Amino acid sequence: MMDIYVSGIGMTRFGKLQDRTLKDLLVEAASKALEDAGNPRVDAIFVGNYMGGIAYKQEILGALVANELGLGDVPSAKVEGACASGGIAFRQAYLGILSGEYETVLAVGGEKMKQIPTAEITSLLNTGMDNQSNEKYAGLTFPGFFGVVANRYMHETGATKEHLAMIALKNRENAVNNPLAQFREPADLDEIMNAKMITEPLGLFDCSPTTDGAAAVVLTKHETDIRILASAQASGPTQMQNIEDLLTLNAVKRSGELAFEKAGLGPEDIDVVEIHDCFSITEIVASESLGFFERGKGFEAVAEGRTKPDGDVPINTSGGLLSRGHPIGATGIAQIYQIVQQLRGIAPNQVEGARIGLAQNLGGTGAYSTVHILERLG
Amino acid sequence: MMDIYVSGIGMTRFGKLQDRTLKDLLVEAASKALEDAGNPRVDAIFVGNYMGGIAYKQEILGALVANELGLGDVPSAKVEGACASGGIAFRQAYLGILSGEYETVLAVGGEKMKQIPTAEITSLLNTGMDNQSNEKYAGLTFPGFFGVVANRYMHETGATKEHLAMIALKNRENAVNNPLAQFREPADLDEIMNAKMITEPLGLFDCSPTTDGAAAVVLTKHETDIRILASAQASGPTQMQNIEDLLTLNAVKRSGELAFEKAGLGPEDIDVVEIHDCFSITEIVASESLGFFERGKGFEAVAEGRTKPDGDVPINTSGGLLSRGHPIGATGIAQIYQIVQQLRGIAPNQVEGARIGLAQNLGGTGAYSTVHILERLG
Repeated sequence: MMDIYVSGIGMTRFGKLQDRTLKDLLVEAASKALEDAGNPRVDAIFVGNYMGGIAYKQEILGALVANELGLGDVPSAKVEGACASGGIAFRQAYLGILSGEYETVLAVGGEKMKQIPTAEITSLLNTGMDNQSNEKYAGLTFPGFFGVVANRYMHETGATKEHLAMIALKNRENAVNNPLAQFREPADLDEIMNAKMITEPLGLFDCSPTTDGAAAVVLTKHETDIRILASAQASGPTQMQNIEDLLTLNAVKRSGELAFEKAGLGPEDIDVVEIHDCFSITEIVASESLGFFERGKGFEAVAEGRTKPDGDVPINTSGGLLSRGHPIGATGIAQIYQIVQQLRGIAPNQVEGARIGLAQNLGGTGAYSTVHILERLG
Repeated sequence: MMDIYVSGIGMTRFGKLQDRTLKDLLVEAASKALEDAGNPRVDAIFVGNYMGGIAYKQEILGALVANELGLGDVPSAKVEGACASGGIAFRQAYLGILSGEYETVLAVGGEKMKQIPTAEITSLLNTGMDNQSNEKYAGLTFPGFFGVVANRYMHETGATKEHLAMIALKNRENAVNNPLAQFREPADLDEIMNAKMITEPLGLFDCSPTTDGAAAVVLTKHETDIRILASAQASGPTQMQNIEDLLTLNAVKRSGELAFEKAGLGPEDIDVVEIHDCFSITEIVASESLGFFERGKGFEAVAEGRTKPDGDVPINTSGGLLSRGHPIGATGIAQIYQIVQQLRGIAPNQVEGARIGLAQNLGGTGAYSTVHILERLG
């Protein structure tokens, strides 16, 4: 099978970027990635975005990026899979090269959320649930869903709210060192434990924020020092009532299994991990579904510091969604950005000698997951 | 290169389907296509849709279709490229198989538009233009854009409003025989010429309607009697002021050239054509950009009856967007549906002995175009 590589990465600052449009953000990230790649000829563009249409009445992001960057008449499209839109855009770029149709492809993801009134955000995010589901009309929201997961996890395993807070703290500590992160002010366990409650047991620091930002990656068939070892994707239940085990994210599990199989590797071979921590509990559950820890044991690893940058399973050295920020369509690609920086040895919270990294991006309440494994050559 | 085939097609009736949701429509079309294909194992799903988020607050259509059809944890995604969303979804399915990752893929597209108040439709459709373009804020709309194209065409070529009406009449005559078409009542040239003016010179019959509907195709690497000879896509200008020649749709021209090159064929080899006639003028201009007629000569071919089902370049035997209807995300896949029916010899307005067909799907004011060429084997 053909090898596919990363030749460039680019990212805007994440946070509140009031005077910039969604198009501006996509173009900034894409320009940086293309420059990093040495401004190659690009054969196609995939844009990951979730709410450009509903929030800003702006679709056709693929063609907008192509036009704005002067990339000519190359094929382009937007792809959507809720919060996994970025990971899916990256995978479509990968498949496009694997198909032999394209040599070099730009994957760019972005979102602009800070301008949206808070009261509207929940309604907009809920487009990622099934409109015909009774549970949505009964009031289920994303924080509500993951709050239930957290309660179930604590009930089954003996984990406490403090374990969740340790995730939030670790990711904040990582973000402090990341110049592009949204939240760089230090926090402590007390502050996190006593923060405003969003949905029991998840407080403000347990929930990812709304964010403006964009990230981009250039993929190519021409050899570089960063090789994509595996790309995998799976779907999962779109309704809570169809989930068999609340402690297992099936789409994450399946996409992880597929990725490890393709790479010929196991969790023990991975040096650095970015996981979709839309909520603190999600990082724990996903780390278990990926096989890094046994079901119900992930919280112990957190307590032991094993997921810190100097631990044996460093997770979210970028600060994660919780503190780097979560501009939805950008997130999956920002994860790859961080992994590539780690493999290049120039990341914030650099993991010494990192050679193989994994990024996992989740969409909906488990409706989508992508897993990508990358390797530094030489 | 690997050969890729169509093994099944399915489509809902097009029109006003008040008691059905967007999900219902997608599932009906997909189920029919899967049944037509003998209910194979499906490895991935691509959904073409434009306004499910903004109009119905319903995204995650990929995972919804996967869940509803019980297709398990297969990868799925929505793709968007304005009115070319369906054609792009079909192409992503094609690339997925070509990459070797998937054997059999479901491409399904749908839209539900009739519930949207007329006053809102223009605003929703305008998400397919560039928000940062001064011309959008000066009041440019899709009918406005294609009205200008029509005026320029008439100015340069000597074509008249009657030539446009002949397109509308031909496509209506074709739709009368298509049991799935939106408009099946006969019309005559007088009625079309004297219909309510939408934007000079385009009257009501010159403009495609809003429509509810969905269409689906199953693609596979396993041989069937319908082979996909070529898949091509290109982007074009997203702003009118950047178009060099209003009589040439650059994305259509480029995607057509690429498709013909890949198939090793020319326009003269095509037996039956579906063209994106969002407006009557668009059918003429696109037929020229594809090379079926010289620039500025397409209207003469219409007047001579050459684009009727018994002509030498049969265009839109389905009734086209003008009379079959235009449920945006479905359109590109409904075109493939009609071409496959033609190649199978069972189409409404069957073209005798049709062996090679072409479908062209446009997005925005020329921002996207896909071209697919299919062939009947044996």
